[in-house]
Amino acid sequence: MGQDAPHVVILGAGFGGLAAARALARAPVRVTVIDRKNHHLFQALLYQVATAGLNPSEIAYPIRRILRRQKNARVLLAEATGVDVAAKKVLLTDGEVPYDQLIVATGATHSYFGKDEWARYAPGLKSLEDALEIRRRVFYAYEAAEREPDPVARRAWLTFVVVGAGPTGVELVGALAEIARFALSRDFREIDPRSAKVVLLEGADRVLPTFPPDLSEKAARQLAALGVEVRTRTLAQRIDSRGVATAGGEILARTVLWAAGVAASPLARSLGGPLDRAGRVRVAPDLTVPGAPDVHAIGDIAAFEQGGRNVSGIAPFAIQSGRHAAANVVRRVRGKPTLPFRYDDQGALATIGRAAAVADLGRFHFSGFFAWIVWLLVHIYKIIGFRNRLLVMMQWAWSYVTYERGARLITGDARDLEKRP
Amino acid sequence: MGQDAPHVVILGAGFGGLAAARALARAPVRVTVIDRKNHHLFQALLYQVATAGLNPSEIAYPIRRILRRQKNARVLLAEATGVDVAAKKVLLTDGEVPYDQLIVATGATHSYFGKDEWARYAPGLKSLEDALEIRRRVFYAYEAAEREPDPVARRAWLTFVVVGAGPTGVELVGALAEIARFALSRDFREIDPRSAKVVLLEGADRVLPTFPPDLSEKAARQLAALGVEVRTRTLAQRIDSRGVATAGGEILARTVLWAAGVAASPLARSLGGPLDRAGRVRVAPDLTVPGAPDVHAIGDIAAFEQGGRNVSGIAPFAIQSGRHAAANVVRRVRGKPTLPFRYDDQGALATIGRAAAVADLGRFHFSGFFAWIVWLLVHIYKIIGFRNRLLVMMQWAWSYVTYERGARLITGDARDLEKRP
Repeated sequence: MGQDAPHVVILGAGFGGLAAARALARAPVRVTVIDRKNHHLFQALLYQVATAGLNPSEIAYPIRRILRRQKNARVLLAEATGVDVAAKKVLLTDGEVPYDQLIVATGATHSYFGKDEWARYAPGLKSLEDALEIRRRVFYAYEAAEREPDPVARRAWLTFVVVGAGPTGVELVGALAEIARFALSRDFREIDPRSAKVVLLEGADRVLPTFPPDLSEKAARQLAALGVEVRTRTLAQRIDSRGVATAGGEILARTVLWAAGVAASPLARSLGGPLDRAGRVRVAPDLTVPGAPDVHAIGDIAAFEQGGRNVSGIAPFAIQSGRHAAANVVRRVRGKPTLPFRYDDQGALATIGRAAAVADLGRFHFSGFFAWIVWLLVHIYKIIGFRNRLLVMMQWAWSYVTYERGARLITGDARDLEKRP
Repeated sequence: MGQDAPHVVILGAGFGGLAAARALARAPVRVTVIDRKNHHLFQALLYQVATAGLNPSEIAYPIRRILRRQKNARVLLAEATGVDVAAKKVLLTDGEVPYDQLIVATGATHSYFGKDEWARYAPGLKSLEDALEIRRRVFYAYEAAEREPDPVARRAWLTFVVVGAGPTGVELVGALAEIARFALSRDFREIDPRSAKVVLLEGADRVLPTFPPDLSEKAARQLAALGVEVRTRTLAQRIDSRGVATAGGEILARTVLWAAGVAASPLARSLGGPLDRAGRVRVAPDLTVPGAPDVHAIGDIAAFEQGGRNVSGIAPFAIQSGRHAAANVVRRVRGKPTLPFRYDDQGALATIGRAAAVADLGRFHFSGFFAWIVWLLVHIYKIIGFRNRLLVMMQWAWSYVTYERGARLITGDARDLEKRP
């Protein structure tokens, strides 16, 4: 591809950005993929890294490696701070990159609904660093409990609260309950890990509120069987070093995890288009940003309604919108009009610990072991890299048979956890 | 075991500490193992984590899990700051633990020979955190080089210097050379990773100075074949953000790694016994600390001469001395005299990248592929945990066939590397 071919910049190498980049492999364009990490991350399994079921490198893959053979693509490790739509330039912390067509796929981050001071006490789960921080807190809590003579303080170390019962929250409590009941059960002398309390808080009236009600109920039953205490219609009113305060009283807990709110990447603001309440770009039907026909917003940063409801925020939307944006980029480069996007809804899955899950495939709802097998196959299939698929399958088979969590390492300094005010 | 059984405290759960703990499994004592990490670490393969060949959890294993079935043992995650030998107490950052018999196995750390300001520019390799820091620097350097237009600055990003040609230094440069030549060779557009320069500095007149000269020579030849530039009789006179200054000139390098000096854990000083130049305890023939007959020093923290030379500082010494100290602990508890220690020298191994190694088995010296197979088998055999053995074998087989490094993830913030003064 010559240096004069149109330059397509893709910001973000998640599912959306990568799908777009690959879809442009044979297009007469130069592609530059910019990400602030060197790896693509399979976020759907991040909770497994947080709970020591998987290693970071099993769900992450170098972006360069993925695009190695795509001759018209190059990869830059850099952080974008904004877009100058008028000048058609991406602004980086250290420089700028001009574009002819721009695909923005920088995703979402967690939102504490304006209570950013909670972040310190209740970390969220969006990056590998987040996952390792949560892992450190969870496994350190058992170590601290083993050494704590005071029963009330010990109880607080052995209480784990997850705020938010979407798929991530449900997956996290499922894994936390398994750690307590199986993985650690015989490792301590002073405490019984099986006495640990795992609490799931949800503001709505049921868990998995975006799923059909019958599956929410099945998920609630599977969580109860794992010993998880589910409290619906319950909002966190305050989170601090003591734990979580709710209308129904205070839960004393040293470990609180945040799986409640998401907000679009702050980059959305610099695009100039209309935003929704979560800061996402309300894209035009062709996925471009209203007022900026050369800027396409895809994946979690986009708000896209179909059939009266928002359908973005999940991996299948990111992939489909990425491919569609790539096709529209080619049409624009060739001087043709863009086409509107239509999301093909393939359903949703969530797992609830060992051999339990719920699946919403439109007309078909199912739960339990069979749903778990579907969940397993879909997730293994979607992980990038044959080696990773093999390793993840092996790790799962191993933990299924032995009830172990292989990656139970506390790294980093744990003293800050002990000394928390 | 009753609460009145003698209390044996073991500080450190490396090879020495664990060997001692396991040897006390059937002794009429209570054992407390204290470590500031929750995991035992197989240090011999740490360079593989630093160079993205292995995952942290494949060479580390939870101490609790290892001692799960040993009913007379408990594990404390805590940091020892010193020993009060007169009062027979271990002092922790947050409390103290009394002992009847103490086994000190806190190992060694890196020493910059009084130039502690070098640590910032040339990290050493002792912990998982160190390994991930080195990995971050190595892989970030290629990313920065890809974006750097100035050829001199780019050259500095593509120059990797390792100071110290002991086994760790040799293993590191071997892996660094392979990354440049194979793993990354096709991933970049602006740079050719094969043009990276890997330099090994050594103050002595040959690499692997503790090995027999014929093996040093073979190692040097294998390193040359990998493209490593070896400079013996060369001391680092200054290390800073520009690189390394030596008597023969300055090497401009953004990535410098330290594999030169080791010093005993600072805990040695509080034991009151005589220390050698590296701060190690000059133990009595029975491995106790002179003047403190209830304190046994084993592994890397001990200095122990046999046949006119120090034999400590390697894993086989740690294991043998740990078992011996445990036996002496039992003899003292039973009122019997302790026995002197005798080290059974089983040789030494070092690997030099893909399918090359040297082995010194006393009368037999060999090198090349066969030495590498021996090295591989010994190391896989010594890793704790069947699952880990399986995973490591698989990772090695995979990289052997594909030349890939599976764990090429840059985690943590890399901006500090870019902005280095």
